[in-house]
Amino acid sequence: MTGAWSQRISAAVLGATGAVGQRMVSLLADHPWFELGELVASERSAGRAYGEAVSWRLPCPLPDAAARLVVRALPPTLHSRPKSTTGGLASTPPHTDDPLRSRVLFSALDADLAGPVEEVLAAAGHAVVSNAKSHRLDPDVPLVIPEVNGGHMALIGAQRRRLGTEGFIVTNPNCSATGLTMALAAIEESVGVDTAVVATLQAVSGAGYPGLPSLDILDNVVPFIAGEEEKLEREPLKMLGRLSASSERINEAGFTIAAMVHRVPVVDGHLVSALVRMRREASLDSIRRAWVEWSRSRALGLPSAPAEPLIVLDAIDRPQTRLDRDAAGGMATTIGRVRSAPGGGIRFTCVAHNTLRGAAGAAVLNAELLVREGYLP
Amino acid sequence: MTGAWSQRISAAVLGATGAVGQRMVSLLADHPWFELGELVASERSAGRAYGEAVSWRLPCPLPDAAARLVVRALPPTLHSRPKSTTGGLASTPPHTDDPLRSRVLFSALDADLAGPVEEVLAAAGHAVVSNAKSHRLDPDVPLVIPEVNGGHMALIGAQRRRLGTEGFIVTNPNCSATGLTMALAAIEESVGVDTAVVATLQAVSGAGYPGLPSLDILDNVVPFIAGEEEKLEREPLKMLGRLSASSERINEAGFTIAAMVHRVPVVDGHLVSALVRMRREASLDSIRRAWVEWSRSRALGLPSAPAEPLIVLDAIDRPQTRLDRDAAGGMATTIGRVRSAPGGGIRFTCVAHNTLRGAAGAAVLNAELLVREGYLP
Amino acid sequence: MTGAWSQRISAAVLGATGAVGQRMVSLLADHPWFELGELVASERSAGRAYGEAVSWRLPCPLPDAAARLVVRALPPTLHSRPKSTTGGLASTPPHTDDPLRSRVLFSALDADLAGPVEEVLAAAGHAVVSNAKSHRLDPDVPLVIPEVNGGHMALIGAQRRRLGTEGFIVTNPNCSATGLTMALAAIEESVGVDTAVVATLQAVSGAGYPGLPSLDILDNVVPFIAGEEEKLEREPLKMLGRLSASSERINEAGFTIAAMVHRVPVVDGHLVSALVRMRREASLDSIRRAWVEWSRSRALGLPSAPAEPLIVLDAIDRPQTRLDRDAAGGMATTIGRVRSAPGGGIRFTCVAHNTLRGAAGAAVLNAELLVREGYLP
Amino acid sequence: MTGAWSQRISAAVLGATGAVGQRMVSLLADHPWFELGELVASERSAGRAYGEAVSWRLPCPLPDAAARLVVRALPPTLHSRPKSTTGGLASTPPHTDDPLRSRVLFSALDADLAGPVEEVLAAAGHAVVSNAKSHRLDPDVPLVIPEVNGGHMALIGAQRRRLGTEGFIVTNPNCSATGLTMALAAIEESVGVDTAVVATLQAVSGAGYPGLPSLDILDNVVPFIAGEEEKLEREPLKMLGRLSASSERINEAGFTIAAMVHRVPVVDGHLVSALVRMRREASLDSIRRAWVEWSRSRALGLPSAPAEPLIVLDAIDRPQTRLDRDAAGGMATTIGRVRSAPGGGIRFTCVAHNTLRGAAGAAVLNAELLVREGYLP
Repeated sequence: MTGAWSQRISAAVLGATGAVGQRMVSLLADHPWFELGELVASERSAGRAYGEAVSWRLPCPLPDAAARLVVRALPPTLHSRPKSTTGGLASTPPHTDDPLRSRVLFSALDADLAGPVEEVLAAAGHAVVSNAKSHRLDPDVPLVIPEVNGGHMALIGAQRRRLGTEGFIVTNPNCSATGLTMALAAIEESVGVDTAVVATLQAVSGAGYPGLPSLDILDNVVPFIAGEEEKLEREPLKMLGRLSASSERINEAGFTIAAMVHRVPVVDGHLVSALVRMRREASLDSIRRAWVEWSRSRALGLPSAPAEPLIVLDAIDRPQTRLDRDAAGGMATTIGRVRSAPGGGIRFTCVAHNTLRGAAGAAVLNAELLVREGYLP
Repeated sequence: MTGAWSQRISAAVLGATGAVGQRMVSLLADHPWFELGELVASERSAGRAYGEAVSWRLPCPLPDAAARLVVRALPPTLHSRPKSTTGGLASTPPHTDDPLRSRVLFSALDADLAGPVEEVLAAAGHAVVSNAKSHRLDPDVPLVIPEVNGGHMALIGAQRRRLGTEGFIVTNPNCSATGLTMALAAIEESVGVDTAVVATLQAVSGAGYPGLPSLDILDNVVPFIAGEEEKLEREPLKMLGRLSASSERINEAGFTIAAMVHRVPVVDGHLVSALVRMRREASLDSIRRAWVEWSRSRALGLPSAPAEPLIVLDAIDRPQTRLDRDAAGGMATTIGRVRSAPGGGIRFTCVAHNTLRGAAGAAVLNAELLVREGYLP
Repeated sequence: MTGAWSQRISAAVLGATGAVGQRMVSLLADHPWFELGELVASERSAGRAYGEAVSWRLPCPLPDAAARLVVRALPPTLHSRPKSTTGGLASTPPHTDDPLRSRVLFSALDADLAGPVEEVLAAAGHAVVSNAKSHRLDPDVPLVIPEVNGGHMALIGAQRRRLGTEGFIVTNPNCSATGLTMALAAIEESVGVDTAVVATLQAVSGAGYPGLPSLDILDNVVPFIAGEEEKLEREPLKMLGRLSASSERINEAGFTIAAMVHRVPVVDGHLVSALVRMRREASLDSIRRAWVEWSRSRALGLPSAPAEPLIVLDAIDRPQTRLDRDAAGGMATTIGRVRSAPGGGIRFTCVAHNTLRGAAGAAVLNAELLVREGYLP
Repeated sequence: MTGAWSQRISAAVLGATGAVGQRMVSLLADHPWFELGELVASERSAGRAYGEAVSWRLPCPLPDAAARLVVRALPPTLHSRPKSTTGGLASTPPHTDDPLRSRVLFSALDADLAGPVEEVLAAAGHAVVSNAKSHRLDPDVPLVIPEVNGGHMALIGAQRRRLGTEGFIVTNPNCSATGLTMALAAIEESVGVDTAVVATLQAVSGAGYPGLPSLDILDNVVPFIAGEEEKLEREPLKMLGRLSASSERINEAGFTIAAMVHRVPVVDGHLVSALVRMRREASLDSIRRAWVEWSRSRALGLPSAPAEPLIVLDAIDRPQTRLDRDAAGGMATTIGRVRSAPGGGIRFTCVAHNTLRGAAGAAVLNAELLVREGYLP
């Protein structure tokens, strides 16, 4: 990959007007490897310039080039295509209604739409890099945090065989699972995780826009987020699992996660506190060292990859959501408060930016890994 | 106890200008059994009318009668009295410097002051009803939530013998331990608690006033509160323990609590989520029933006691801090989100008002129990 | 009015599931003069028990009796009735589709619905006590804060003649106009208001539920609320105006109000700062005295009326939204920060609870005045 | 100025551990023109590495080079030096106790300290670029926003003559005055300001650290900030005034500002809404054009200067604090909501970052202007 301007890879954002879609647009606007040329949103926005169709909610300015792009909608036939009984689209030919020309499609679609639409578009030959939950647990769809399990991209081979095209779907995890999985990776690799009990304190931006009514969260805590505990208990196990010998599936990690999630009145940044019991004894110092070494060894050198993916802090009251969510442009996970636990095991707290490292930035980083690994020739 | 006006018991508030002290003043202003006649604060406030000395931070008005009381300071000799080597004051005669005339002293003193001062005042014959942590774990000092372990007041006999006076100290637990202990009580009594992992989301009023700087908590979460996890891991075990046959000490409950505490940007109300593993199997329904029955059987009929000390909610997203902290005038604990946990056990969330049920209201309720049980003849 | 239980006046709440409707239900549940027997909401809620249909957002419990009432919807014919060209319904007979039996209808309907529906229901003979903006400026519809301009209820005579029935509509002002008007009343009556420049800092509950997305207001200020400045600039002039000799219209007050409104991240309570230039010179002390005397003379002795409708504070940093919004059960306006202004005039700040004194409580108080004045025999 | 590394100007930060001091350190860490070599704080911090002495509260990392600098304290003799009766230090020789070697001293000292200390240090030959209020209104001390009144730096000549050294003091305005003055400048220059009534909604970071207790501001508005209205009513008049022919004083602008200030629960960013009456009639469009042209003509090309100092937005609900405070790295003022006012004049709202454009960034930009104008040869 030379990164030269003329060779940038064409890219689209699906669901471009939503909270995560806006972050994707923002990250792709000046990206050295991708050229953002298509924006897809609902019928309501179609035909209007993105700058007019979007209610831009980010503190950074809306990029001019993106503002001028005309938003298009997907044809209704794409949404309603019947799903095959095997969960895939094996025998179908490329979809002739597909209006998109971009090589890579970054998907911030809602889950109900993402399920069928992403399949059709992959079958039509696109590389779909998705933040949606719909296909995360499909056996041959990689669920990837590049620093943790970049090797899982090898599932793409099996997926392409199933789809019968060069297209494929790649996914990143739920925003609350991202930081936790990065924190657990070094423990699982060194001494093994036995059980984890985790409590999350999640930002309102994780609920999208308009998302949570202000009356529900000002001066309040809500101890419920639909479907979130299930994702947090399952997705890390797939990411920390091992690719089968045939590269056709993942053997999930064997430990148990029990989650208790909470929405708190902060704008951005998910904080996760965890009590982890390990398979083998380990001192607090050895765990701390394992994180530091893991972090050092996983600096990927990709455009969006942080030099230090896991930042270990010593201050007794860190990490904190507002002070640490923006570390490395919102792409690093910060960890601290490491201490032993009554009854055994360790306790710690980590913070990651939910719409950057936990969503839009995660997708862009996945796409960068795909480029380097040769999946987007 | 007839409750007739002329027979009200004289009462003082120590630390009357602080956050908890203000709540105590507010609760005692029109109390049917106590007559608030003395207010104690630091030298800085001494000699001024309470209404001028205090920076009143409660949304209810400062009671007129309290506003007119002249604040006094404790003589320095009270603070500096050397502690006996046995941790008590066994052989000392009543302190002649004691300027207070009230029968009951409600203490919202800071812990560093509360340790020596409360002992001296108890030895001088006062009933000290304290919110401070200093004596909570002293062997013959009751640490009491009336609905949970009112019987522990029997320790007063041993304590009086040690002090050689009619005076004594009684304490209520840390604000974050209160709701949790009420929630665990019915489980411990029915099927036994094996381990509990708890995460707290605590209000800023728990840090007193001025307490937490606003820059530390707006749009932020702080996963650290000095000394809080230790209290949360120990105090419930004493309260859920059993009085020894001699009524001289408590045999603490034998399970383990592991706590992860967090400060969140809410004004009042501590929310605690817990994962509890039990000694014996129990269905979610049986736990829910145990709570409802426990709550019904523990309505104490005291002036500050809620008709329903533990309110069990069914809504999938309750309890919530702002919506439930004020239940029963801030004296009920609300519980919900009961569900099983991966790997066994149950998860639930409870909310209690930290400066009412968790501090000032707790002390007043303890004093009411003392009246009914005959400790304040 | 004896207030005896058996003689309570039948009442309904229209728009009962919304934020203001919930407050109305809460205030009417145990009202000594009204008996809440009918709840009206949208088709979606119709036929369900109120306790199931409503997403109860208040910190106080949902009253049991209200929870059991079955919600009904208004027949579509009521919504679509063509408005007469004169803005009234002069010659129409009582509407035969009217399903409501209550004497008094408390309306928390959205403005688009309130316009036609309230007219039909008044023409059908009901007393409509409305919080909606739709009819506030109609010439023969009273816009009333009882302590300020209770005498304007005399417009009801002209309105009844127009409608040809015993029914009528009475309205209360916009939530942000309420506190300001109470503050201006004593000035206008004593030395006359020349101009007022006001800035509001308004709570999110003023936008209803779901209302403002949390992403729009956490750690943010929004200097725009649709239509709010217009109401704030006009409604006080009608309330501070004089009833014409014929009691058929109001001659509005002649001064100018210029408003700058802001939404801020607080749950309840609108704070308004004002710079007022007067027609005649007046010292700060005389203004303060005018407020105190006004307040004393306007204690109405109605069930929801505060003993002191306008509370004047001296502390240099009061009123404050959280500390003062709940004064007198949320029915008093608190005022302070009185100081002179460069260039002449005075500056002050007032706080009123927007969903109590500014909406639901305002409507209930208006209805209480109607009872006492004999409009609900 | 070539900007070459070897020629960077030596710089110190006074009050380096406070909220504004931290911002200064952050801005100077990689500055092309200044080399940060000395950090000054209180005795408590002296002798420790800055990285240990400071409680770093910014979301960006503490720069490594600064972290290693050893903090020093000022000798007590500097603080206690008697002020001359004329308000200056005219005849004193350079102070021999002065321990500082830096050419430029950025002062974030508290006002009580800044008064005497800055004078001594200027008299000792340093260029003191101060954020403190102490000398802002001294006749021969420039109070400067470079885009507004850079020419006022000419007062330095008179000041140097008074001090008898090459040293001098230069100041930037109060954080709430900055955005307002930039907004008023174009109006004053084109049609003249007659009166301005302004309401501010200010962030908690403006109160420093620890500053405002969280209990004072969560879910609250405080309509009082000590001394703030006075500064807001006076400082813009000096900045919008004219340099006298002799360049020895400023003839202040002749209009009146009346301010009503409020603290609101936001972290950073002061929002100011203003009602301005002009000397000559002007359409909204002409005002808007005046701002755009003013902004275009005042792009200074200095390292910290925004390309567009005043950003004019058209969206009906902008500017907003969180969305606009960071414009141009926190150095632009954003303006919008331009509309006419009842009774004449216009209303608008502007937002500026209080610790960047309103404090630390303001000082750094002033220093950059000093370099370019030849005051730091």
